[in-house]
Amino acid sequence: MALETVSLNRSHGGTQGVYKHHSRETGTGMTFSVYVPPHRNGAKLPVVWYLSGLTCTHANVTEKGEFRKACADLGLIFVAPDTSPRGGVPGDPTGAYDFGLGAGFYVDATQPPFALNYRMWSYVTEELPEIIAEHFPSDPKRQSILGHSMGGHGALTIALRHPGRYRAASAFSPIVAPSQVPWGIKALGGYLGEARDAWRKHDTVALIEDGARYSDFLVDIGDADPFLTEQLRPELLERACAQADIALTLRRQPGYDHSYYFISTFIEDHLRWHAARLTA
Amino acid sequence: MALETVSLNRSHGGTQGVYKHHSRETGTGMTFSVYVPPHRNGAKLPVVWYLSGLTCTHANVTEKGEFRKACADLGLIFVAPDTSPRGGVPGDPTGAYDFGLGAGFYVDATQPPFALNYRMWSYVTEELPEIIAEHFPSDPKRQSILGHSMGGHGALTIALRHPGRYRAASAFSPIVAPSQVPWGIKALGGYLGEARDAWRKHDTVALIEDGARYSDFLVDIGDADPFLTEQLRPELLERACAQADIALTLRRQPGYDHSYYFISTFIEDHLRWHAARLTA
Repeated sequence: MALETVSLNRSHGGTQGVYKHHSRETGTGMTFSVYVPPHRNGAKLPVVWYLSGLTCTHANVTEKGEFRKACADLGLIFVAPDTSPRGGVPGDPTGAYDFGLGAGFYVDATQPPFALNYRMWSYVTEELPEIIAEHFPSDPKRQSILGHSMGGHGALTIALRHPGRYRAASAFSPIVAPSQVPWGIKALGGYLGEARDAWRKHDTVALIEDGARYSDFLVDIGDADPFLTEQLRPELLERACAQADIALTLRRQPGYDHSYYFISTFIEDHLRWHAARLTA
Repeated sequence: MALETVSLNRSHGGTQGVYKHHSRETGTGMTFSVYVPPHRNGAKLPVVWYLSGLTCTHANVTEKGEFRKACADLGLIFVAPDTSPRGGVPGDPTGAYDFGLGAGFYVDATQPPFALNYRMWSYVTEELPEIIAEHFPSDPKRQSILGHSMGGHGALTIALRHPGRYRAASAFSPIVAPSQVPWGIKALGGYLGEARDAWRKHDTVALIEDGARYSDFLVDIGDADPFLTEQLRPELLERACAQADIALTLRRQPGYDHSYYFISTFIEDHLRWHAARLTA
């Protein structure tokens, strides 16, 4: 698999890279970033996957996430994929921020015209892991996943469907029940069609209701998040986890909003949570 | 002095703000950012000034600087001004990145058409400190200054000319001898005219040669910085400080470049250096 190196920058003792490749899943060029912490020659390091939210690319967390110091301290590789195919593929003709470009929602679309390119589920869970395993000093047996907002939705659903592969899962401000909120109804309807049974595999709360299990989740949400009550609805996750006996550490952070100023404040906590489970 | 609040975000227990005001010095609207760490009601906190480099605004360090955790731990207010007047004022008609907009060089211009608006020296050393003192829980007796590249030049020259006001001074990748390098010759010539005597008050090495003194400087430079040998020339600062008995801690950081990936790696060290001198 050919990788083009876009940039390499020394940071916190390791290397922050940005890479491009042609994706077999999306049929487009895709860009992602990887931070490799300082390590001994020949070492194989655990990999933390970070899925971004609506409108974002790999760049948002790479520039604003403040994750590198903790990754350097803990010896974690940090991978940040893009959130949709780019470049000449269909977006929302209305130019909406919450569907199409920047809003892939981590599903494999079944509906035209999106089915051809919007394959972010397979891209993030199959294709990109192969590339990371091939090109970086990583240990595929030690992977974990987190995300923000739409990416929190992605992280939790991916973890619930691959509990043996991802040893830790956490989220900032996740969309936990897309079938029940406007962002999710628009996205799942547009990518998967109106038959709602197909949505349940891409809905954290529905997956848990349908029997999916995971050891434990860490979730941070700001209580000043403007999307809290309409789009995020953490109480639905709380109830589902309680009924399923899934250990949920849900922290409502006072005064925090939906931004990277919030994420960067608590990402070290998340990475320590992941490291504890990746090195156990 | 009326301040307009552009944004406020909770971060690392404190508040990251962005503000606009009309500047008497530049005659334009000016934008700056201030991080206020968590503090007791009524407390007056030390203020660290951060001056940015060519092409930057307040936003670069605010988003990418990774300074808030250390400022929160150390109880420091962090102020990031813009680097030039904006909005309808003259820039370089060639669209150059190194003169005019984004390249004020922290001088009060004397040459037309720049003399009217390009008054970044007075803006940063006089006007904005008054605003900070009035609007933020700050202790004007405890201030310090640092900067990057062109902003490192600004920080060192301002500290040398106000050794009693700024209790600590440090720089990342500073332009230490603008009179001797292309960026500086273009900027000082354009803003101050061709009579080079006027440049010496805006040249760190020349100021030291002319008798200015400061207790000690911390300077970090990446040895993979593409501007190292032509524009930055740290050896000139080394020699001037040695001859003047100024304590210089100059660290050449292996593999690091000129970017915020470099700055964010070492800014905690700088803030600890500042805090030690601000609380002594």
